[in-house]
Parts: sequence; structure tokens; C-alpha cells
Amino acid sequence: MWTFETMMSEAASWLDASGPEPDVVLSTRVRLARNLSGETFPCCSSDEEAEHVRERILSAVSKCNYLTNALVLRMEDVDAVTRRVLMERHLISAAFAEDGAGRAVIAGEGELVSAMVNEEDHLRLQCIRSGLAPVDAWRLVERIDSELERNLHYAFSSNWGYLTACPTNVGTGIRVSVLAHLAGLSRTGRIAQVLKSISKLGLSVRGFYGEGSAAQGGFFQVSNQTTLGQSEEDIANTVERVAGQLVNLEHEARSELTRTDEHRLEDEVWRAWGILANARMITSAEVMDKASSLRLGVALGIIDAPDLAALNRLLVVTQPGHLGRTRGETPSARERDVARADLVRRSLAGLN
Amino acid sequence: MWTFETMMSEAASWLDASGPEPDVVLSTRVRLARNLSGETFPCCSSDEEAEHVRERILSAVSKCNYLTNALVLRMEDVDAVTRRVLMERHLISAAFAEDGAGRAVIAGEGELVSAMVNEEDHLRLQCIRSGLAPVDAWRLVERIDSELERNLHYAFSSNWGYLTACPTNVGTGIRVSVLAHLAGLSRTGRIAQVLKSISKLGLSVRGFYGEGSAAQGGFFQVSNQTTLGQSEEDIANTVERVAGQLVNLEHEARSELTRTDEHRLEDEVWRAWGILANARMITSAEVMDKASSLRLGVALGIIDAPDLAALNRLLVVTQPGHLGRTRGETPSARERDVARADLVRRSLAGLN
Repeated sequence: MWTFETMMSEAASWLDASGPEPDVVLSTRVRLARNLSGETFPCCSSDEEAEHVRERILSAVSKCNYLTNALVLRMEDVDAVTRRVLMERHLISAAFAEDGAGRAVIAGEGELVSAMVNEEDHLRLQCIRSGLAPVDAWRLVERIDSELERNLHYAFSSNWGYLTACPTNVGTGIRVSVLAHLAGLSRTGRIAQVLKSISKLGLSVRGFYGEGSAAQGGFFQVSNQTTLGQSEEDIANTVERVAGQLVNLEHEARSELTRTDEHRLEDEVWRAWGILANARMITSAEVMDKASSLRLGVALGIIDAPDLAALNRLLVVTQPGHLGRTRGETPSARERDVARADLVRRSLAGLN
Repeated sequence: MWTFETMMSEAASWLDASGPEPDVVLSTRVRLARNLSGETFPCCSSDEEAEHVRERILSAVSKCNYLTNALVLRMEDVDAVTRRVLMERHLISAAFAEDGAGRAVIAGEGELVSAMVNEEDHLRLQCIRSGLAPVDAWRLVERIDSELERNLHYAFSSNWGYLTACPTNVGTGIRVSVLAHLAGLSRTGRIAQVLKSISKLGLSVRGFYGEGSAAQGGFFQVSNQTTLGQSEEDIANTVERVAGQLVNLEHEARSELTRTDEHRLEDEVWRAWGILANARMITSAEVMDKASSLRLGVALGIIDAPDLAALNRLLVVTQPGHLGRTRGETPSARERDVARADLVRRSLAGLN
């Protein structure tokens, strides 16, 4: 049975490093923005309207083959720490974690597919896969979208396509994001130029936790900016192609690092291991920074363990919400730093 | 047979942490400044005069029971790296490592007793012991001094006592120095006040490598300032008493640290271990800094290994000269940092 506790006790499947190019790309996320025809957008709806929309969507979800076992959480039943946890697992957005009527989150088994009800749009449906897999992820989310559409009448214009609350999503309502670890490009100083080229290709770049979050540890999210004038499949293909080039550039940068500055690189990697395996207090920013160095070391064969999957999981389970939840109380920042260091050491114990 | 190579392959005996208060006091050094009657001071002597003085002293040394096996190095036969090594082992001063006629260094077994010929004075005789042992060290150096005096006629005035090149040494010619690890006082911020009190008691405070060297890692040398108007034994007693009080203050500061900031302290200690056991490049300043944290951790039972003796040795064998010699060539600063990190890791391997 897929319950909230099962979900919390396991890592999301997209963290398992089983997808393509796992040394550079952690995950690919595809989301669709959809709204119900004849219903007011969440921004402007009354509580009753929002709840009505939610019940319509949840009813359709319950009839969807892919989501029969999905976990459904009505947000009014979810406490602050759990909201933060859901955000850290990329199941909800920061804005969604705040108050709002008629909100719900739906999480399929392994968190591969999930949805937010009454975020900016009535429905935000997403699929997250391991590695570089925009087209694969889109195919899955598209299948579920079609299934849902049998029981939901989406707001759609033959001129514009799917109608959304924000004009930037009108058309396909698709956003395809690739979470890439550009540690080599960051260290060779070529990152600024590469990111500039990417934005010229119509893609945007953000940090690990989306809009406005800093690009800690060399982790970047690359995604499409336009949703109009191209098919969903074309957009998924474009992101897959550009991200593939990015992977090549990152590999080149890593080779260059190994060639020109091997001692410094080895030093960075092993110190990162030394800190993570020994610290008794650590912030999540430092975990991300050191895990980044370690990830680079694993990818380049400088250090054997931990594996990429363990490092991916570490980035999520050491976030403040996850730590707060594990401890079952509201700890101070310092208590969290101590608990986080314990968790990191236990995760890495015996690995090297 | 006590040769230079034997000496280099072993650590100096005063590093073995076998003396009193080894958690705070690394070593005690007592030196006597002596000059030969009727000979010009080294500052002003011709090369021939300096060489004549040297042969007179070496002849007396060869008749001294305590120094029969001593190693004698004439400085004109000693290359630059070896001079640096001798300095790092506290066998010669920085000034002595530079050029000068008729210089020699004498090192007894285990480096417990040693002497410089034609440094600032004709003879600088010293004894270094493990831990807090001013009176013990003085007794030994005094015995050897008396033995030498049977064959050497020292410059001595019944008004002033032993005559020396610099007026600050006139009288007893004694300097008693205690090398203390004041890590607790440094961390609680009480160190400035304590050092001020010490100088009011007529003692002076310097860094790990003497005059003008910085007090890295919380290591301080405390020694007498005056050599006149008191007996050698009184001076040794005074330093022993004041340093004993310093040890108590340091113990109090350490208890306070454990009481008030245990997590931060544990974190510092374990991170230091993580860095030393994993770094692939490290400077000697960082080794001293991290070894200081680790030393504090060992003293407070936060971490079991390495033991104090291993940490004491690490401070000496990771200095630039020792590393240069081990590698048998003149390495660049970066090569030294790599070699130093290798050495540190090998020293600590399997200890924790």
C-alpha cells in the first residue's frame, strides 16, 4: 500500500541515478498546466469554487489507471513541517506550501508522477524521471493527461491552445526541466558563457529549488521558456537536445580539470569526503557544496563510494523539513545542524 | 651508533609526550649561554678566531661523559635543506642557519641535549625534555655545563656572572622556555589577558618557532626575560611555577569549552581529523591549525587516536625542510603540499 509513511521511508525513484547520463543529470521533470473549462482560476476563485474544482479533479484522478494507488493529501490537513518536506521532494512549489483554499497534492508510487490541485492553475501534473529523459518523461505525463481529459473538460482555445492563469504557460502549458550538475563548467569558469548561450536558445536556467533559488554546488535547472508555437513533443525534444550538448560540454570541462589540476581536484574531493564523514554540525548549504565535490569525484573515479544514488538522496534528506520531520519536533537551527551531521555520517558510514 | 641518519629516522625524544602535563605542555627547553674567557665574541671575531674557539669547545665536548656519542656537524658541511631541518628540530636557531664562520652543532642521543657553537655566544648549550620539566631540564644542563667547565675557562665576572654577547643574557645566561598548547584559552578569548599577566610576572611569550614567529594553532612559548639577580635554579623554579598555573588556567578553559559549546567543539575536532586524514594537499600552517584542534580533542577525550606523541611528531615532520629532505630534492611549494598531505595521511592511517 502506497501511504505517506511508505513514501517518507523511501527515496523518490527519480533519485536512484538509473537514468541516462546520471553523472551530470540528476533528473528530468515535465509538468503540464491545465485548467477546467467554466471554472474561475485559483487566483480569483472563492473557497467554495476552489473546493468544487478540487473534488472534480480528485474524482477524475481516482478513475485514472495510472493514479489508482496515488496518495492524496488535502493541504488543510498538512502541517507546516510536512509542507516543507513535500516542497523538498519537489512534489509542491514554495507558493503552494502557503495557505490557499481547495489545495491538494497527489503523489503516485515512487513519486514518479504527481500533481498539485489549485496552485496557480487548477491542475499541475508532473513526471520526474532519473537522468536525462525529457521525451520519456513527456510521454508518460502525456498519457496520464489524456486519461484525465476523458473525465475533465479542460479550458482550451483552438487559437491559443490550453489556457492558463499566467500567459507564459498558455499553449502547451508544458515546462520541461533538467536538473544538471555542472561542477566542471563551474570550476573551469566557463559556466557563465555556457548559460548565456543556453538562454539565447530560448531556455532558462535556475537553481536547485527552482525560481529564485541560488545555484548552490553547481546544480542548475535548465528548462524551456516558451510554451506557445511548438508542440509539447517538440519542446521536450529541444530540451533533450540542448541538455545533451550541455552534458558534452560538462564532460569536456571535467576532462580539462583532470588534465590541468588533478592534485587540486583530488584534494577538493577527499576533503569533501573528510568533512561529510566527520562533521558534527553541518548546514544544508554545506552538504550541497560538499556533496557536489564528492559527486564530481565519484563521476571522475577519484573516489569509489558513495554511489551517485546515495549522493542524490543525501541532497534531499538533509534539507531542513526532512530533518525536522525525522526528529518529530521543531528543532532549532543548531539542533538541525547536529541532526543533519548525524544523518550524513550514518548515510556514509562504512562506505569508504 | 648515533648518526645523522639515525637521528633523522627517529623523532626527537622530547616529542614523545612522556613528561608531566603532556596534554598542555609539549616540551621544556633550558639553554645556557657561555663564552670562553680571552676569546672575541662571535659577532666580532675573525674566521680563524671562530675556528679556534670551535676546536677548543669540540675538544671539551669529546671529553664530556654525557656527550661522548654526540653527533657533531660543522656547519660549512651542511646544505641548506639540512640547516632548515635542524632548525625545525629546534637544534639550531634561524640566525644560526645563515652563514657564519666556525659554526658547529652538537646533538646528543635522542636530541635531549644539544649545543650550538659560535651562534651569538661561543656556546649555547640546551636540554629539551618532554612536558613541563624546567627544574629537571635545568639539572641536566647544569651537570653537563659543569663537566664542560673542567676543560673550558668561561668568561665570568664576580660582579655580573657569566658574560654574554648580548646584555640580556648576562648573569646566569639561562633561558627556560615552556612550549604550551593554550587551545582552550585561545578559544574562550581569555588568552590576551592571561599573556598580559604572564609578562607582568617577568616572563615573555613567543610563537612555536621562537622570536618573531606567529603563535599558530594556539602554541605558545613562555620563557624568563631576566637572567640577572637570580640563580639559575630560582629562574627554573619560577618558570615551572608560572607555567604550572598556566596549565591550570588552560584546564579550566577547556572544561568551560566542554560545558558551554560541546557540539561546536566536537565538530571542530572531527572536521580537523577529516581534513588531516583525507586532504591531498596541505600547508604546514594548516597542519598546525588542524593538529591543534585534534590535540584538544584527544586531551578532552572527544577522539581516541592519534595519541599526543603522534601529533607532536606531526608538527615537526611536516615542516618544509623535513619534507624537502625526505624527497631528496628541492620540491616546489605545491609538491611539498602534496608530499605533506601524503605524509600526514600515512601517519594517521588506520588510527581512527
